[in-house]
Order: sequence, then C-alpha cells, then structure tokens
Amino acid sequence: MEFWFDYASIYSYPAVMRVHRECALFEQNLVWKPFLLGPFFKSVGFENAPFVVNEKKGAYVWIDIKRECAKYGLTWNKPSHFPRNSVLAARVALVGIAEGWIEPFSREIMQRNFAQDRNIGAREEMIAALEALKLPAIEILHRASATETKALLRSNTEEAMKKGIFGAPMFISRGEMFWGNDKLVDALQFAKCGQLAPID
Amino acid sequence: MEFWFDYASIYSYPAVMRVHRECALFEQNLVWKPFLLGPFFKSVGFENAPFVVNEKKGAYVWIDIKRECAKYGLTWNKPSHFPRNSVLAARVALVGIAEGWIEPFSREIMQRNFAQDRNIGAREEMIAALEALKLPAIEILHRASATETKALLRSNTEEAMKKGIFGAPMFISRGEMFWGNDKLVDALQFAKCGQLAPID
Repeated sequence: MEFWFDYASIYSYPAVMRVHRECALFEQNLVWKPFLLGPFFKSVGFENAPFVVNEKKGAYVWIDIKRECAKYGLTWNKPSHFPRNSVLAARVALVGIAEGWIEPFSREIMQRNFAQDRNIGAREEMIAALEALKLPAIEILHRASATETKALLRSNTEEAMKKGIFGAPMFISRGEMFWGNDKLVDALQFAKCGQLAPID
Repeated sequence: MEFWFDYASIYSYPAVMRVHRECALFEQNLVWKPFLLGPFFKSVGFENAPFVVNEKKGAYVWIDIKRECAKYGLTWNKPSHFPRNSVLAARVALVGIAEGWIEPFSREIMQRNFAQDRNIGAREEMIAALEALKLPAIEILHRASATETKALLRSNTEEAMKKGIFGAPMFISRGEMFWGNDKLVDALQFAKCGQLAPID
C-alpha cells in the first residue's frame, strides 16, 4: 500500500502514527510517499488548504481532529501556525526512506508539529528532531539538500498530481485511492482482499 | 441526534439508509433535518458542489461512493444528472416529518436518485414515489407547496448556515458537528456517552 502524506497536513498526523501498526496487522507492505500538497492547492486556484479558505469547514476541522486524536490516544495541541512549511521535513524524509528510519522520523516530526507546537520548517528544529532520534543531523541535512533529493521530492509531488491525488493522507491500494485517515483500514482491507468487508 | 441532509447529496444516500437502524442500536432519538446545500455553496463562492468544481476530487468521489455502497449492501448507479434539484423532495420531507413517514419516504427518494437514476426533482416522479409508498400524492404535494412548508425549508437552511454546517450529511450530537456518512457511529457514540470510545 502506498501512503501519500504531507507533514503539514493535519489528518496526516494520526495516519502517520497509525499506519505502521495497521500495515503489520493486515500483513501489508508500506510504501512511504512524502509529497507537498501546496502545489496541488495552487493548481486548482486555492491559495491555501481548502479548510483555511473555507472558514466554516476550517472551524469544524479543528474540533474534529481534536476528537480524532483523543480517539486514537494521541496528544493534540493546535499549532500556533498553520500550515507549517514542510519542504525540509519532506526532503529529510526521503533520506530516511533510503536509510531505513522513515517511521520514527515521521512520528517525531508529526508530534513536534501537532503535539508540541514546534516549527518543523526551521533548520534548528530539524536538527533537534534528528538528534532526539540519535541520528547524525548535520550529515543528514547535507544529504537532504542535495540536488538528487530535491529532484526526488519534486518527482513525488508530480507523481501525486498525475495520479489525481487532491489531499492527504491518501492511501493507494491496488491502484485505487482511499482518502483520509478514516479510510486507512478500508485501504488495507482492499489491499489484502481486493474488496471491503461488507458491514451488516 | 440531529441529522442534516440533502436529497441531492451523494453521501447523504448511505446515511439515510443507515441512520434509523444505527440510532435504534444506540438508543438515540433521531431528528430529521432536511435542508438545501446549494445556498451554502453559493455563499462561499462555489457555483456547484465542491467535487463538481474540483475535478480530481470529483473523480475520486464517484469511485469512493461506489465502494461505500457495496460495503453497506446498497445498490448504486451513478445518476445521469448530478446534482439533481432537491427542493421538492425537501419540502415533501417536511410534510413527512409532520405526518410520520419521513423515514420510508427518505429511503425511497434516495434509492430513486442513486440506485434507479430517476429525476427526483420532477413532479410526476414525486407522485410515483409517494404512490409507491401508498401515500396520497396529490394531497401531499399540495401541502408541500404551502407557504408555511416553503418557509420551514428556508428556515431549516438558514439554521444550517447559522450553525456553521458546510456539507452533508452532518450529524449534530450534544451541539458538536460530525461530518460525513463515515462519522455516523462516532456521532451516536458521542450522543450516548459524551465521548468517543478509544481505539486501541
């Protein structure tokens, strides 16, 4: 199953925190796909996330995500700035995929953004996050800013656009999109069985 | 629990088909709140439903609703026209609430719109729907077009706007909004216990 997410995206937070374990329960392989939502929003004429543009939906989202986090036992603190710049985190994530620490890194960044209200876009905050994971921060930042890493993130984002991805988190199972944290289990069931279990 | 819905809204279809039984399971009282989404979309500058405006999201929705209907054992046929005019159905629904046949009526209309591809906005189709339910169609249509009924629908729609409702179906439990068919069980759990059951 492909897991498309953006570190700036609210509902990508519970998805990142749940995805590894749920994949294990369904015995499905997990393909991490960090990308940037910003270019998509701009391409459809939004200046920002739809629920920043749409005030009423925005008000709802902050209530809903708080309830959802409580449901999954996750700490939630509304970020004082939203959305945060997630370019650096996404580039570091690509290094993490290559080096095998993408899961703990993603959890760390999401918790910093949505539980600890820290600016994940700042270089010094990224160093602190990597050091908290006992990773060689400076070395990794160097790799994250390499031309190939930047190109890979652009290519992920272009792939997302081409696939028709319009939001995050997005799960892709057997070529079908499942949108939103609410749909994680459906996506895994579909990956495993090719259909959703009927609900009585 | 309040159940806000529009007969033109895709995800209101599975919600209408499920809501009565789920409320019974949770021992919750159901307050039917038909309203019109159109005026809300216009108020935020959309000319149509957001997924008609946003092409990629639109493409996704038609795949997702098909899967969702299969999951709940509901027949689905993509309507040849979308969205259909739901003003007449909403007015008749208000008569149905007063007279106690809102549930079978709502199921009938949703199935006609989303399983049988019939134009629920046409007077002759409404007559056929009411007659299928063995209801006095002409009498009901007369009541549905009364000044008070029209005013009541406008007042429902204004109430929805004032409450911050931005989509359908919307469930309101203890003053909190739960958006989408996916959230029906959460809304009922919240209505019953004042919190969501934690997911391990």
